[in-house]
Amino acid sequence: MGLEAERIVTYGQSQRKKQLMAAALANSTLSTNCDPPGNAQSGHWSFKSTALAIFLLSTCFFQINKASNRDTVNVNDTSAMLIQLATQIAATTTLPCSGHGYLEFGGTKQCVGTCKCYECFGGVDCSQVIHSCVIDLDHGDPTMFEEFWFRHEVSSITVILGYQRMSYFAQSKHVWFMENELELQIRALHEVVGNAVTEGRHIVVGTGSTQLFQATLYALTSPDQPKPTNIVSAAPFYSSYPAVTDYLRSALFKWVGDAAKFSLGVEREEPYIEMVCSPNNPDGRIQHAIVNGTGHVVHDLAYYWPHYTPITEAADHDIMLFTLSKSTGHAGTRIGWAILKDEKVAKKMMKFVELNTIGVSHDSQVRATQIVKSVVQGYAYSSASNLGIETQTLSSRSLSEHVDNNKLFHFGASVMHYRWRRLRDSLSGSSEFSIPEFQPSYCNFFQKQVNHAPAFAWLRCRKVVDCEAFLKENRIISRSGRHFGVGTEYVRLSMLERNQKFEMLLSRLARIDSSRTPD
Amino acid sequence: MGLEAERIVTYGQSQRKKQLMAAALANSTLSTNCDPPGNAQSGHWSFKSTALAIFLLSTCFFQINKASNRDTVNVNDTSAMLIQLATQIAATTTLPCSGHGYLEFGGTKQCVGTCKCYECFGGVDCSQVIHSCVIDLDHGDPTMFEEFWFRHEVSSITVILGYQRMSYFAQSKHVWFMENELELQIRALHEVVGNAVTEGRHIVVGTGSTQLFQATLYALTSPDQPKPTNIVSAAPFYSSYPAVTDYLRSALFKWVGDAAKFSLGVEREEPYIEMVCSPNNPDGRIQHAIVNGTGHVVHDLAYYWPHYTPITEAADHDIMLFTLSKSTGHAGTRIGWAILKDEKVAKKMMKFVELNTIGVSHDSQVRATQIVKSVVQGYAYSSASNLGIETQTLSSRSLSEHVDNNKLFHFGASVMHYRWRRLRDSLSGSSEFSIPEFQPSYCNFFQKQVNHAPAFAWLRCRKVVDCEAFLKENRIISRSGRHFGVGTEYVRLSMLERNQKFEMLLSRLARIDSSRTPD
Repeated sequence: MGLEAERIVTYGQSQRKKQLMAAALANSTLSTNCDPPGNAQSGHWSFKSTALAIFLLSTCFFQINKASNRDTVNVNDTSAMLIQLATQIAATTTLPCSGHGYLEFGGTKQCVGTCKCYECFGGVDCSQVIHSCVIDLDHGDPTMFEEFWFRHEVSSITVILGYQRMSYFAQSKHVWFMENELELQIRALHEVVGNAVTEGRHIVVGTGSTQLFQATLYALTSPDQPKPTNIVSAAPFYSSYPAVTDYLRSALFKWVGDAAKFSLGVEREEPYIEMVCSPNNPDGRIQHAIVNGTGHVVHDLAYYWPHYTPITEAADHDIMLFTLSKSTGHAGTRIGWAILKDEKVAKKMMKFVELNTIGVSHDSQVRATQIVKSVVQGYAYSSASNLGIETQTLSSRSLSEHVDNNKLFHFGASVMHYRWRRLRDSLSGSSEFSIPEFQPSYCNFFQKQVNHAPAFAWLRCRKVVDCEAFLKENRIISRSGRHFGVGTEYVRLSMLERNQKFEMLLSRLARIDSSRTPD
Repeated sequence: MGLEAERIVTYGQSQRKKQLMAAALANSTLSTNCDPPGNAQSGHWSFKSTALAIFLLSTCFFQINKASNRDTVNVNDTSAMLIQLATQIAATTTLPCSGHGYLEFGGTKQCVGTCKCYECFGGVDCSQVIHSCVIDLDHGDPTMFEEFWFRHEVSSITVILGYQRMSYFAQSKHVWFMENELELQIRALHEVVGNAVTEGRHIVVGTGSTQLFQATLYALTSPDQPKPTNIVSAAPFYSSYPAVTDYLRSALFKWVGDAAKFSLGVEREEPYIEMVCSPNNPDGRIQHAIVNGTGHVVHDLAYYWPHYTPITEAADHDIMLFTLSKSTGHAGTRIGWAILKDEKVAKKMMKFVELNTIGVSHDSQVRATQIVKSVVQGYAYSSASNLGIETQTLSSRSLSEHVDNNKLFHFGASVMHYRWRRLRDSLSGSSEFSIPEFQPSYCNFFQKQVNHAPAFAWLRCRKVVDCEAFLKENRIISRSGRHFGVGTEYVRLSMLERNQKFEMLLSRLARIDSSRTPD
């Protein structure tokens, strides 16, 4: 077996050891040692290798347990895959590095890792809080979802063999670069959530919805037009719209700005594209087209999911954009999709994706398929009778927890509503800050009245002129209102960060607020 | 266990059954049934689950063997992961669906698949050749590498758990969206091959080198310049350069065309960017900058790998572009990289990738890391003593085969040189077609004189004016010379397709050639 023990920075408990292995998966080495003989075939070998696998599996664990007594872990190439398997089965309920860091692995000693802590955390296992740190809430990085997916790492595992998905072409030629299975799962997801009509609609996948935003600008304009088409959106608008529209100085389209100023009650006769982000980034409000004219409207529905807002209807607009990052939290996978009524628009958007990146990563599509399927099944498999083998190993209490835990939007909504309650409590009667108020609405998904719980806190400083600078003095990084087409008294703060970071935000806001005594 | 057998179209041999499972991996479902108890922890549970794993593993195989007797396979959610494991160990030496198709899986019956055959093949297992079919060689789809990676599916497996790589940000902040481990492996690959200097250079990853080509245009131009920068390349030039340069009608740059016509011996004083693709797509020739002026030069070295051309030096230009698709064959992964001398250029290219797609798929980066690492190790682990467990199970003959089989560039070069010999033989003395001649050079990588074996055959029709139309009449799809800035007597044909498709090309070209009697 050649399993040798390696010394690493102290990893006391066997639980840590398992975390180490779990985190090792995404970049662990599986050496060619694992290769079968070139001439291996038939049931005989399959029997032989099964026996071998069982032997290896038990041996690996014997080695690991032995190793763990010496605070060491070694995921040897030969048995890495088997340890991965056992790791997934023996997964723990806590994230690696106390949930405040990731494991970094050396080039040669692949699976001997050390904790690299996220901002604000320290110590060998990242359990120490650095209270003096700077809290960066500039981006809407949806890391709060890690907790859910850690609990469902097995249902959401993605495995791709070296020879799979090598071609430029998807295994379905419907959209040449789009995996047929992903389209099916996206349609199933909207069916479960009821937030968009997909029947009879075209779906085009993109490298995140940012690529699809540019694809719509390309699809809705023409090189034959006399001048660039005006791109507008009601302020406060998503801060990326202006930069992404103008960075290449295209003659096809140009950013104009606030749709309200562009409209001003008059009927617009020239071509334009109005971006309607609803719920709105940054302020979470439900939006509708406001320009009076015959231009195009693109609905950016990245945040129209039950964890952020009541689902009041199945959206049915000409062009709707969605993204994996704000629905399941997988921002790093860079997958978005457009739901389209017009086939000509779909074809031109596909052409853009072809010219821009020659299609969309098939690995990301395979993973997105797995993730979305896991979400859909979380709602399909929510009765104990469907839990199969788990029912034999779970106590009835943890079983019911398990059932609830399968539901992504229930998890997301509970976290977001809890955070918004905490934020409103900590800012109630604040003399320094105010946040938007929302009226609850009936949510067809949860089948009850539900409050809005936006992905961002749109904070207004009551006293200071430059709210971003004011927060920065207090070691909180936010995005100023000026990026969103409004005044500097506003800032956008992400509500999607990991728990401890959110808690630190609350305590700092409370400390800042002069109307309160410091905690 | 709840493993129920499902009826599928006839899969006679147990080998086919294993192919079915192997191909099932990339989109098989792993249900939440596999989740551990929410409160599971500690060595006790890890012992329990190891025992469980061994139990499942054996049970799965018992079930599968039983199933196979009825020509059926069912990868049940609960045991899918264990079957994956066993499948990888028991991998066969042939691709699924006879290597001429892929397995399609239904939405609910996840791992009950049927063969969907590639063009020119039919039958339930895609073993039937359809001689009347149209052979599409328009794209450089590098599917010939599937054979290599199928043999190394274990060393090149990618496993990503649901909670991993969720953030927009890479785990290294060096380049905010680039995985540190990928950069290390890319540098190691160039070290092994010796085709590019990376020491002291900046590396920026992109969504394929097409995105990085656009990133260089953005990085080397400025909105302050009076008019668009001229983009040129010596004809015949890569057919995508014009379209990708002009599709957004940017005011920053515009396609001008043939660098030879642009230059015409005079010194150019206005800004320009010369694209130097070497070896050249489409004709495989080694290229150098030809414009006389102070403009920028971008070296597109997508094909500067030992399977296509002799490695005569470690390239050391200001801006060099490489791509995974033409080096390892993983086109669907959409990963390219730029090697850069100037940090300012690197930063502007990163800005482009940020605006264009908010970074690069982290799943693709994780997979690219695994694939490149496997290639590097194929050259590191090439002595029998390093083969570990294999040495116990392999005959000395298959062992030595195994050692050679570990070397990607040895595999690639042997296939490409064989194909070029076959092509030259079949066209020798042809009255219809001619192909370029090359002088062999000393290859530092193979340490001997090596012939050129380009990824494309740049075919010239001796008699007809429109070679593309002529080939189309004979059911061969090619790309006309007009797309490459030259005459229609030329066409580009991919040499990177799967074996049978290449063999069909040869027999058709021979049949076409009036100077021969039909085979």
